[in-house]
Amino acid sequence: MSAPATGGRVLVASNRGPLSFTAGPGGRLSARRGGGGLVSGLLSVAAERDVLWVCAALSDADRAAARRAPDGQLSLDGTTGGAGVRLLDIPPGTFGAAYNKVANSVLWFVQHLLYSTPHEPQFGAAFQRDWDEFRRYNAAFAAALATAPGADRAVVQDYHLSLVPRMLAERRPGIRIAHFTHTPWAPPEYFRILPDAVGREVLEGMLGADHAGFLSLRWADAFLACCQEILGAAVDHTARQVRYRGHLTTVGVHPLGVDAAELTGRAAQPDVQERAAALAGATRGARLIVRVDRTELSKNIIRGLAAFRELLVTRPQWRGKVTHVAFAYPSRTDVPEYRAYTEDIQRLAAVINEEFGTPDWQPLMLEVFDDFARSLAAYLLADVLLVNPIRDGMNLVAKEAPILSRHGCAVVLSTEAGAADELGSEALLVNPYDISATAEALHAALVMPDAERIRRCQALAEISAAMPPRRWFDGQLAALDPPGEPDPVPAADPVPA
Amino acid sequence: MSAPATGGRVLVASNRGPLSFTAGPGGRLSARRGGGGLVSGLLSVAAERDVLWVCAALSDADRAAARRAPDGQLSLDGTTGGAGVRLLDIPPGTFGAAYNKVANSVLWFVQHLLYSTPHEPQFGAAFQRDWDEFRRYNAAFAAALATAPGADRAVVQDYHLSLVPRMLAERRPGIRIAHFTHTPWAPPEYFRILPDAVGREVLEGMLGADHAGFLSLRWADAFLACCQEILGAAVDHTARQVRYRGHLTTVGVHPLGVDAAELTGRAAQPDVQERAAALAGATRGARLIVRVDRTELSKNIIRGLAAFRELLVTRPQWRGKVTHVAFAYPSRTDVPEYRAYTEDIQRLAAVINEEFGTPDWQPLMLEVFDDFARSLAAYLLADVLLVNPIRDGMNLVAKEAPILSRHGCAVVLSTEAGAADELGSEALLVNPYDISATAEALHAALVMPDAERIRRCQALAEISAAMPPRRWFDGQLAALDPPGEPDPVPAADPVPA
Repeated sequence: MSAPATGGRVLVASNRGPLSFTAGPGGRLSARRGGGGLVSGLLSVAAERDVLWVCAALSDADRAAARRAPDGQLSLDGTTGGAGVRLLDIPPGTFGAAYNKVANSVLWFVQHLLYSTPHEPQFGAAFQRDWDEFRRYNAAFAAALATAPGADRAVVQDYHLSLVPRMLAERRPGIRIAHFTHTPWAPPEYFRILPDAVGREVLEGMLGADHAGFLSLRWADAFLACCQEILGAAVDHTARQVRYRGHLTTVGVHPLGVDAAELTGRAAQPDVQERAAALAGATRGARLIVRVDRTELSKNIIRGLAAFRELLVTRPQWRGKVTHVAFAYPSRTDVPEYRAYTEDIQRLAAVINEEFGTPDWQPLMLEVFDDFARSLAAYLLADVLLVNPIRDGMNLVAKEAPILSRHGCAVVLSTEAGAADELGSEALLVNPYDISATAEALHAALVMPDAERIRRCQALAEISAAMPPRRWFDGQLAALDPPGEPDPVPAADPVPA
Repeated sequence: MSAPATGGRVLVASNRGPLSFTAGPGGRLSARRGGGGLVSGLLSVAAERDVLWVCAALSDADRAAARRAPDGQLSLDGTTGGAGVRLLDIPPGTFGAAYNKVANSVLWFVQHLLYSTPHEPQFGAAFQRDWDEFRRYNAAFAAALATAPGADRAVVQDYHLSLVPRMLAERRPGIRIAHFTHTPWAPPEYFRILPDAVGREVLEGMLGADHAGFLSLRWADAFLACCQEILGAAVDHTARQVRYRGHLTTVGVHPLGVDAAELTGRAAQPDVQERAAALAGATRGARLIVRVDRTELSKNIIRGLAAFRELLVTRPQWRGKVTHVAFAYPSRTDVPEYRAYTEDIQRLAAVINEEFGTPDWQPLMLEVFDDFARSLAAYLLADVLLVNPIRDGMNLVAKEAPILSRHGCAVVLSTEAGAADELGSEALLVNPYDISATAEALHAALVMPDAERIRRCQALAEISAAMPPRRWFDGQLAALDPPGEPDPVPAADPVPA
């Protein structure tokens, strides 16, 4: 392994890691590198630092690989530098309850304000059992981190692992711990939905960290408000610090951006270029409103389609001239509410095509099968990008498309996405619940003069590239340095005022 | 009319007034006095002051009465003193859109956090038309108030009339205006669901008042936060004052209570006593857990039944010994979601009776037909009162039952009811989403020693009687006095610390 640039070994913990395995004939396991901002950012960090990445085995093949590896630890291939990976073989029952029942069905719903409160949630005996499994799942990570030799810093990723910082601090005093939340954070009035002891345990778990990072100032401030109102912690809102039971946690904003060089390189590959040509042919020169999302309740795809319909009603001049390309990729298809959401999307799309389509023009192209290369192709061709989540930690689609757009796309962006903090001055901001306002913003985007659209898109691309994953991750590490000993790597910029 | 005790004529505005009419044979109209805290409080005030009460005609008979009265103004009968009533003949289309579509289906849902956000609301062209009607409805009240002769103060009641203060201040400079909100108030992160211009218009409308009153410190603070974050108004959180466009609005907490003498007198009537005897006979000496609610999505009746079921599962010693008397009276039966909620309640009640009932014991007595005398009878007999709303401006049931309870009831009370501010020290507080915690609180209430239960109930009764409607209303009037000229009537106490 290469020598660390500064300090000792760095531990990273996240539910999903950089490696996944598939079993071939005769039980042979083959490894595959994962994608996503965290993985690419961390792999570039790992080239210069001694990193051990602790993550969960997500499949039977992952579990088999974990069991075969000495001490459960694996190496990435030579190109990734000094990173090691430890896959945790967590019992499936524990993993399922922690990941699906608690993290994705409760904590996610609370942080995104998704509950239909008259009916859900109902916290009874079943939830208490799931919560015990969530503790076990967190404890498995804490145990692995606590026993990894030689490390002086740990960077724990996301709400799945919110109990880890406190558990780790108790087991390994002296290690510096950062936690980072990739979701929004709920205001105290909504966070109080959680059972009292559970809400306290989440907050106390995170306050075991020396630094708690968020994607937006809004989420950081909401977390501070929860610490104050629910825990009664001493909160300095100006300095963004929480003192609780004698321990100080600093709270910071680290707005994850895009590695522009990597993204542009990927989009130059033949598979993307072929799909761009095919999409251009299929849409016959119509102007393109593009959206790309997982089919997630928070992504607000239904209201996006309804806004496109309202555009065609109130601004009929766009009929025959604009096509809405909507990629809504499957997500959590094991949950009935998500399957129903996909069906609602497909039904509304059919209604719109039936109502407005002509032999020469299909108003809406909805695709529900995941194809990353085709997503990038759509970014290349987009005239307008629609990103209208009802609530979103950041939303990287809003940052990727302007970097790739060939002729400068306008971005219609929800005020409730974390990305609005940085992109708000150049995007067209909309209230995601307001279909009329969204339709008007789509119209404004379509009539925007070319020069203005291109200028805005360039500005959006620059902002989006300012905090690539590598720099974003270094910012979290730097936040762990004791005061007066700054990390030589530049720290993360604060959010633009 | 009797002479005013202090100052000039007082105008009161509310959607529902103190009088309603029914048409008899030959079109003869007969008047009936309404009930409720506001009516009784105001009628006692009206005995000493010159009050004109402006409200909406709610039925065809009301409209006919309004049209027959000179200037649309009616008198109450002699026993109520100097109050006059003006029934506004608002076009049914305007009233229906304002009251049902905007106030009860949007503003109510926002303030109570009731939306299933992935699906509702969707603000499109239809909502914009409804909003225009809401403006017209508010303007009708403002016009009636602005042209009433001789008044120097106006007290405007509730969220239906949130636009009135600003409209009135513009039409009649110099009149002092109070507005009072009977609902909770949403935190800014949820209030932002409203279309941007609509949210601003609501806040600006209320800031036309000189004083804005709320039932709980939490709701007052949430309103202040909305003024600051959404309007950018200058807010002094300590003094609870908002300065906006050169106008100062003070914000106050006026926790409405119960007129204990009136309530006790009513409960002594034969109809209540007969029902108490019948209820005692039907429940055969079982201990009684009582709830009384409108069947309103915010009242959390389903989780209440589920908590009772969990009590019978986890504490089987109560089987055969406790009966849950649940009165869930029809509300908004024109709205499908409310009808479905009633059906869900009936279904769950049947399941519980089927699961646990014996020939000698019916675990659950659910009644869905409104009977006020029977409600009071249940308060007389209650061992435990269950009040578990997911969110509630105040909740007067929690204050009425302890006043009437014959042998001292314990109160299991949601932390999310405004009443928890005052009653929290003597009630058993529960998170309304937590069925296990609610079941445990019911158990704790049932095993509470008699002496403690009686002492707590007496304390709850005293707190509940401390701010009867008359005094509550005088507090709003006193808040309109210029500084240094206190009203001779005692001002409302602040919330107990």
